[in-house]
Amino acid sequence: MKIQIKNAQIITMDEGRVIKNGCIRIHQETIAYVGTETAPEEEFDRAIDARGAIVLPGLVNAHTHAAMTLFRGFADDMTLESWLFDHIFPAEDKLDQEAVYWGSLLACAEMIRSGTTLFADMYFMNESTIRAVIESGLNANVARCVTGMNTEYRNGLEEAKELYTEYHGAQSGALRVDFSAHAVYTCGRETLRAVAQAAESRGAGVQIHLSETMKENRDCYRQYGKSPTEVFRDMGMFENPTNAAHCVYLSENDMDILAENHVGVSHNPISNLKLASGVANVKEMLEKGICVGIGTDGTASNNALNVFEEMKTAAVLQKGMRLDPTLIDAQNALEMATVRGAQILGRGGERGQIKKGLRADLIILDSDSPNLWPVYHPASTVVYSANAGDVVTSIINGKIVMENREMLTIDMEKVKAGVEKSLARMDI
Amino acid sequence: MKIQIKNAQIITMDEGRVIKNGCIRIHQETIAYVGTETAPEEEFDRAIDARGAIVLPGLVNAHTHAAMTLFRGFADDMTLESWLFDHIFPAEDKLDQEAVYWGSLLACAEMIRSGTTLFADMYFMNESTIRAVIESGLNANVARCVTGMNTEYRNGLEEAKELYTEYHGAQSGALRVDFSAHAVYTCGRETLRAVAQAAESRGAGVQIHLSETMKENRDCYRQYGKSPTEVFRDMGMFENPTNAAHCVYLSENDMDILAENHVGVSHNPISNLKLASGVANVKEMLEKGICVGIGTDGTASNNALNVFEEMKTAAVLQKGMRLDPTLIDAQNALEMATVRGAQILGRGGERGQIKKGLRADLIILDSDSPNLWPVYHPASTVVYSANAGDVVTSIINGKIVMENREMLTIDMEKVKAGVEKSLARMDI
Repeated sequence: MKIQIKNAQIITMDEGRVIKNGCIRIHQETIAYVGTETAPEEEFDRAIDARGAIVLPGLVNAHTHAAMTLFRGFADDMTLESWLFDHIFPAEDKLDQEAVYWGSLLACAEMIRSGTTLFADMYFMNESTIRAVIESGLNANVARCVTGMNTEYRNGLEEAKELYTEYHGAQSGALRVDFSAHAVYTCGRETLRAVAQAAESRGAGVQIHLSETMKENRDCYRQYGKSPTEVFRDMGMFENPTNAAHCVYLSENDMDILAENHVGVSHNPISNLKLASGVANVKEMLEKGICVGIGTDGTASNNALNVFEEMKTAAVLQKGMRLDPTLIDAQNALEMATVRGAQILGRGGERGQIKKGLRADLIILDSDSPNLWPVYHPASTVVYSANAGDVVTSIINGKIVMENREMLTIDMEKVKAGVEKSLARMDI
Repeated sequence: MKIQIKNAQIITMDEGRVIKNGCIRIHQETIAYVGTETAPEEEFDRAIDARGAIVLPGLVNAHTHAAMTLFRGFADDMTLESWLFDHIFPAEDKLDQEAVYWGSLLACAEMIRSGTTLFADMYFMNESTIRAVIESGLNANVARCVTGMNTEYRNGLEEAKELYTEYHGAQSGALRVDFSAHAVYTCGRETLRAVAQAAESRGAGVQIHLSETMKENRDCYRQYGKSPTEVFRDMGMFENPTNAAHCVYLSENDMDILAENHVGVSHNPISNLKLASGVANVKEMLEKGICVGIGTDGTASNNALNVFEEMKTAAVLQKGMRLDPTLIDAQNALEMATVRGAQILGRGGERGQIKKGLRADLIILDSDSPNLWPVYHPASTVVYSANAGDVVTSIINGKIVMENREMLTIDMEKVKAGVEKSLARMDI
């Protein structure tokens, strides 16, 4: 399929280049042209007139647990312990493949509607999530999350290996399979080592939770005499391309370790606030040269998969916390949500920019939205003024998955029925 | 006009009552019935089937400067001084009535699209803002913002008095005119006293900026030997129903003064973060019994008039700052954005709840939005999961101003043209 998009304000995320009245051409899955020249429309299967709207790379959600949409708003405003042990874990015990499928499909619908085109998912029963990802047309790095203080990790790791064999690189590379050890407080030494080795022998990526709470760090020092970052490093995890979520409590030494080992960080500001974990020191991480992306976390702790609000929160929160309004400017926040997010998912040079030769993942905003007017600096408009409802069209791998807010790959009525049936079966 | 809305999940904000499958009837400007019984549709001019959607009171934006939409994204990510003195003030010098009109109308369009039905506006050339408010069908408390370290406040105060005479209570009470002294750092003693007296002699409300930054407090102590709160009190301002914006730096004594004098606070969390002012201690204010509403501030410092993101930020920010996830629960945040906002605008018992006898200001969310599924607790869904794009229908004073996302009172093409022409004339 050949698509041309004309009359666009293109935020390329390619060395800060913005094209005021630009044109994008897509051949099959790939961006074939970005510039100011418009080709005759009859050469294309689809010719889209953006009518002056902002077009930007699809957003990257660098950390989530998609199927947890089932538990959106199920347990709020309570202590982390009560939330996790009294509500989330017992509810997750009732999940089956069918429920994970519908929860994941609901997540995919929400992500498409809110402009996300690539996400990192850490969960279990992953075949069901993959089924939803394929149907929806999204890109994802899916990881079987492994836990176990002793040897009980082994079944999970076997599943992870099978998942990798079956799906890594599937759908012309839309899908990647990562490995995942949940966190230092849920994985013993052997678990961490085994996951690290399984990934290393395959050249696979890794997803982990890292230093999310003060308690995690305190307990880790008690158990290991060192920080979670040091533990992961010493178990060999950082030999792999690693996407570390949260990183709220890192020492300067921890940051040096992450930088040296090229560990990417997915910053989850809203989840960290909502669960009262704290605020990550993004300023220092960036100064250390760490690649920082943005994640929403699961909807049980956010409760949305909305990268727009996450970007804005990431930018204004650093300013407000450090009493410095120049920190994390709009361009920086947008980099985190696009090109840097792609990079920490092992997709650098493949996605996250509107650039000739890259995969065609892009979104078009509503040129009629009053909140997007006037436009002085398009990146500022996207980060500070846009909201998820402003996304009208989404193209992923050269395929139109949403047009004029109509989802073309997902039937919401079916999703709602599937979710309801799953929740009834789970008696939630 | 008689309207019936059936099959709604009604968040009444009336003593926490939620009606799972409810019906609302509107006669003219007023809510005539809220309950579970549906009347025959032929009795109504309009019968709306909400199809299970959440219906809630229209949101209240308790502090903004509407016309500043013209400067949305004009100057970001810089120090407060450079922002204000190098960019905003010089740009405001170029404003004329026509520009204020188009900027205000753009703001009204954005507010209607994002579910706001009532707002507090502090600016100048207010007739133009009022013109936009009347055309759009919104409710507003409009205040002529007065400044002056000496006697140069007098012209502004005369305008304020004329505005009050002409428009207070207009449009069947949709419009109120408040008085306003900008802040302690822009108003001298005589100015503060004169504004206080002008309001008191008329029984009018007052809008002020209060303790927004550390610098403001420091300078005030230097000048007066007391806090901005004490200065305003001593000049008699709090003899009037007062809406104090920001309140980021209040001592315990300041909070006691606000509580004793029934001063309402409009909390502007995103603007306070973005300008690096800090985070207001909402927890303590609520404990002191202060009535706290939510404001967006102007779009030059936010850059949106989106009360949804403001509510969510207000809730999660307190949790994250105080490391206590139980602070400001969803119901609390929603109260700030509805019933409490109405109260600090002098509209308590008139608006902000879905209750028989109150004015019919309400919004309907999209029952098909994937991010609004599933619903365990409707208030949580609204505060943590909804975004501005989820508002499909808005009814203000019993009049449908937006239906299925189509704005019925504002023509966006005209607004865009008007804004462009104004900016060109101002050479911005």
